[in-house]
Amino acid sequence: MPRPSSKGKLLDAGLHTLHAKGFNGCSIQDITEAAGVPKGSFFNHFKSKEALALEIHQIYCDNFQIEMLFDQSKRPLDRLRQHFIFLADGYEKWGFERGCLLGNLRAEMTHEYPHMRDALKGSYESWTRAVAGIIISAQQTGDVDPRHDAPELARYLINAWEGMAMQLKVLKTRDLVDEFLDVTFRVLLR
Amino acid sequence: MPRPSSKGKLLDAGLHTLHAKGFNGCSIQDITEAAGVPKGSFFNHFKSKEALALEIHQIYCDNFQIEMLFDQSKRPLDRLRQHFIFLADGYEKWGFERGCLLGNLRAEMTHEYPHMRDALKGSYESWTRAVAGIIISAQQTGDVDPRHDAPELARYLINAWEGMAMQLKVLKTRDLVDEFLDVTFRVLLR
Repeated sequence: MPRPSSKGKLLDAGLHTLHAKGFNGCSIQDITEAAGVPKGSFFNHFKSKEALALEIHQIYCDNFQIEMLFDQSKRPLDRLRQHFIFLADGYEKWGFERGCLLGNLRAEMTHEYPHMRDALKGSYESWTRAVAGIIISAQQTGDVDPRHDAPELARYLINAWEGMAMQLKVLKTRDLVDEFLDVTFRVLLR
Repeated sequence: MPRPSSKGKLLDAGLHTLHAKGFNGCSIQDITEAAGVPKGSFFNHFKSKEALALEIHQIYCDNFQIEMLFDQSKRPLDRLRQHFIFLADGYEKWGFERGCLLGNLRAEMTHEYPHMRDALKGSYESWTRAVAGIIISAQQTGDVDPRHDAPELARYLINAWEGMAMQLKVLKTRDLVDEFLDVTFRVLLR
């Protein structure tokens, strides 16, 4: 394995630190300490904490394995269920302490950070578009009522997921995920 | 009108400052400056920023007008719709910049703040219990399928609301609220 670069160490430590403590809850020094690099080297790689957060947002999205939603070998709603189980497994790795980084960034970084707001807008659009595609496929196979507007349902259930991910941080129990799956697949998508 | 006390000024300024900037995004000094009181007087009234945030959480919940959900003179689902319109009007007053304080606190204050976590658990339970009561009444009047579990539906739609409130901060458009109401009352609660 090649030795990770300072930038790689900062991105890796930044992802964990930002996700655990929030954007305003950690300092650049917290991140350089977690990365084990000198504080001064931060600005060789990033012009600000927001610039780091923007790259971390992109890495988090890349780790979403959104391609799972496009796997034509599985039935549409099975892919969607598998997607949420994958995300929940990720949250559980941290004892549900961290929630969804996208939701956390939305809570903290919309008002004074127009670049992050644009990035969050983009990731939400990609995610909901992929889920809407699944719902359209499920409407074609007769699994979901074709009279419903698929993008509307997609945004609604992603919002329900994001609200649940926040509540997971409070209650720290997988039951919330099971309940989300139950209502999504038994009541909303039918 | 009686002159507001220093504590009253701190609570009022604290509510606005915390809601606008987040718990970690503002300092005690930001709050005392917004309140127009000397910084040193803060600790005469609150033993920490968390202690202030706990009182602000309670004030925010008291302003929720949750009693609207119990108004027996109106049909259950009409009460619920009116409740969400009331909340959305509150968000719109701040140009949708601030989202829901409860969601913001969940994002920032669960990990290291067990008292806030307990408070957030309590407010979520009160809110979802009131909404579940509405759904049970609507099941009795035949407006919602009686086979569904009312508390599950209540938590799902509150989560969808909270996820939407975060997304409002990104997109700042009332369309998200209209879409939430449409899916809630046309698809989820039927």
